[in-house]
Amino acid sequence: MSRLRFKISMSLDGFVAGPSQSVDDPLGIGGMRLHEWVFNLVSWRAQHGLEGGEVTASDSVVGESVTNIGATVMGRNMFGGHPGPWRATEPWTGWWGSNPPFHHPVFVLTRYAREPLELEGGTSFTFVTDGPEAALEQARRAAGEQDISLAGGANAARQYLTAGLVDEMEINLVPILLGSGERLFDGVGDDLHRLELVRTVATPNVTHLKFARR
Amino acid sequence: MSRLRFKISMSLDGFVAGPSQSVDDPLGIGGMRLHEWVFNLVSWRAQHGLEGGEVTASDSVVGESVTNIGATVMGRNMFGGHPGPWRATEPWTGWWGSNPPFHHPVFVLTRYAREPLELEGGTSFTFVTDGPEAALEQARRAAGEQDISLAGGANAARQYLTAGLVDEMEINLVPILLGSGERLFDGVGDDLHRLELVRTVATPNVTHLKFARR
Repeated sequence: MSRLRFKISMSLDGFVAGPSQSVDDPLGIGGMRLHEWVFNLVSWRAQHGLEGGEVTASDSVVGESVTNIGATVMGRNMFGGHPGPWRATEPWTGWWGSNPPFHHPVFVLTRYAREPLELEGGTSFTFVTDGPEAALEQARRAAGEQDISLAGGANAARQYLTAGLVDEMEINLVPILLGSGERLFDGVGDDLHRLELVRTVATPNVTHLKFARR
Repeated sequence: MSRLRFKISMSLDGFVAGPSQSVDDPLGIGGMRLHEWVFNLVSWRAQHGLEGGEVTASDSVVGESVTNIGATVMGRNMFGGHPGPWRATEPWTGWWGSNPPFHHPVFVLTRYAREPLELEGGTSFTFVTDGPEAALEQARRAAGEQDISLAGGANAARQYLTAGLVDEMEINLVPILLGSGERLFDGVGDDLHRLELVRTVATPNVTHLKFARR
């Protein structure tokens, strides 16, 4: 059966975004520091049409994380746009332009109903108003034999973690402090629902901690 | 010059002790889960007169952490006993009995003055009321060419981290959630004061993240 897979970059003090997140600054103040390790990877740069960069042990981890994904679930905050009901004219269509990098069906958790969006390159956005389990169920049907990516943000991730629905979690632990912002595990409690550390990949800039149900 | 070295076990969600710490339960509820990785090491068991256990990559990390230490600084909470002024009769003399495992001078941060204690095996406890820098200065004189161990607890560690006085920090990251309790980095801010990740040792039960000033 397809597995729900989740990856996120987290600071040593547990933050996955800086304070004061907004449409103009979706990562929050200092939040970009969580992602610097990825921007210099050959694999990331090639994906984005850039030359150069470094080959590190992170390349294969990142490569693995985007392989065999047939559908994505994400929270409204990750999809972005202004909070509250969708605007009737020129509604927000995501951060990713007319040809988003998913190339498969994406299911967005929201309290506000909306018609699905069909964009270029095989990406669709379906808006699900009846909760994370319903969104996962729809994603499972769309993914077929492949896995499902839980793309975030932190609030959606917490809902799936708390419900014990995450099958695989890759924490990219960045050896910095953010000091404030949004914590991944706030309110999740003390139960990882049988997610165990199954692999550690160490680099100077990031430690990849892979958890899975054994 | 002697270096101030600090090691601590921390959960994936950033806690170094569980909730409801007390004299009877100094690690707080669930806090013992942070230390299970160590109790099964051959080296730890041998130190405590026990046979058996496992040899893992953690053994050398633990061995290194207790080598070349000439003095220790710790907070009042780590030294233990009831909070507030020292009792006049039968005052608290620490958790460690008449022959504590330090075997060198220990400097305890406290707001309450008290005569030094000389115990067996070379361990003394000196109570320092004029702040963490003064305690470190005294420890430096006592340590000579050797290093100084910052033994905790979290509150004392935060004071030294915030002041930028820590030269080496080993985070033993335990792949569990505690959900609540005492966070190591609460209020420390976003500045590691040039402490950088210099070594990662991975095992299934703990990830040792060593930080040092390059």
